[in-house]
Amino acid sequence: MKRLILVRHGESEWNKLNLFTGWTDVDLTEAGIREAYEAGKLLLAEGYHPEICFTSYLKRAVKTLNEILDAMNMDYLPVQKSWRLNEKSYGALQGQNKKEAAQQYGDDQVLLWRRSFDTRPPALALDDPRSPRREDRYKEIPDNLLPMTEALKDTIERLMPYYQGTILKAFEKYNEVLVVAHGNSLRGIVKELKQMSNDEIIKFNMPTAVPYVFEFDDRMQVVSDKMIGDAEAIAQKMQSVANQGKAK
Amino acid sequence: MKRLILVRHGESEWNKLNLFTGWTDVDLTEAGIREAYEAGKLLLAEGYHPEICFTSYLKRAVKTLNEILDAMNMDYLPVQKSWRLNEKSYGALQGQNKKEAAQQYGDDQVLLWRRSFDTRPPALALDDPRSPRREDRYKEIPDNLLPMTEALKDTIERLMPYYQGTILKAFEKYNEVLVVAHGNSLRGIVKELKQMSNDEIIKFNMPTAVPYVFEFDDRMQVVSDKMIGDAEAIAQKMQSVANQGKAK
Repeated sequence: MKRLILVRHGESEWNKLNLFTGWTDVDLTEAGIREAYEAGKLLLAEGYHPEICFTSYLKRAVKTLNEILDAMNMDYLPVQKSWRLNEKSYGALQGQNKKEAAQQYGDDQVLLWRRSFDTRPPALALDDPRSPRREDRYKEIPDNLLPMTEALKDTIERLMPYYQGTILKAFEKYNEVLVVAHGNSLRGIVKELKQMSNDEIIKFNMPTAVPYVFEFDDRMQVVSDKMIGDAEAIAQKMQSVANQGKAK
Repeated sequence: MKRLILVRHGESEWNKLNLFTGWTDVDLTEAGIREAYEAGKLLLAEGYHPEICFTSYLKRAVKTLNEILDAMNMDYLPVQKSWRLNEKSYGALQGQNKKEAAQQYGDDQVLLWRRSFDTRPPALALDDPRSPRREDRYKEIPDNLLPMTEALKDTIERLMPYYQGTILKAFEKYNEVLVVAHGNSLRGIVKELKQMSNDEIIKFNMPTAVPYVFEFDDRMQVVSDKMIGDAEAIAQKMQSVANQGKAK
């Protein structure tokens, strides 16, 4: 049996402050570190045993993965990092409070920017200090690939080559693969695996630090999917993500 | 200018308890985590910028590296892990108190086991639960390569293919390379770079969580080496390592 385990990073400083984060490299909160470690303990208790891990270039995902591996005593596992697993770029909204944005632009506009499949938030200017082109970590990525803003559609488009060409390819060698990433990059994977429509994936809210496990048959067809952990706590987390970015 | 930065992991639980550790996968102490993070802050303040990192399969080294990268905001850097960077195997001594061993076998015998170039401690039995052959993390390593005990000579021998073939080779692509490993695996690298005799390397004590930086010219000849940080604190740390394993 082949298994893909998806985990969204734990609570970050800007989740807590309710700011648009995107590609901003913010840290986990203490609560975020704890929930990441708990996710690892849960995976260990349930007998999971990933053999290779993938994560983004962003601290909150890398550190969530580190906590999970530490909890599982599997710090030795190989880890590959890619900018293609990064969160959706929120462009010029990055750093703005979600409620303030909702008050300024209206709930509907902000919901479009957050959850429309193909509406992009305002782009970063090329000379904006927040531009990824100014960051050392992206210096080997061609400028035209580095997003100045993204709709979910764009995030999925830049994710797919890595998902298809590297993550899925890892199953040729390994049976269990762990991916720790972000709400929107993981949406791209879930949409593909569940064959969701654009409307369906917009309504799907990935809870933080809850392992979402897909099982495959020998032809890599999905045979089951489930979230691991207490059902009520998971439902609460999903609701709390959905509620962010409302004006009241 | 090419640079190689060597860091020995921070204080581990068994350093603190003064037990022979070797390949036992013990955790860092709180103090060990702090000194690792401080080492990262120091490297950042001094303007270092590694581009790729290497570490062992052991938690105390991986977590020291994680702390350094976190302090430097370079969590995104590529990390490669290898069992060849593991600490010297202390065989059947693993888990025994160093002072008790000194009382039982005498200071001289224990010093030989700890510091002789080619005297091996008693080996683990094949059916010993501590045998690396029983551990999942080493399942892809041929049994005959997995040590049941090691003299420093053996540690260096199994390290060298990785040091020459992977770590040094990384300089073809990168200018600055960070290696976080263990007292004895790092001795192997220092011996090579400083062209030390077997006697000299035995007397050299790598302090915990102190960055030791080698600079190379274009032909990869060492042009300088220095430890980064407060000289007095470094001297104290080196003395404290040297004092472990004495009966009184």
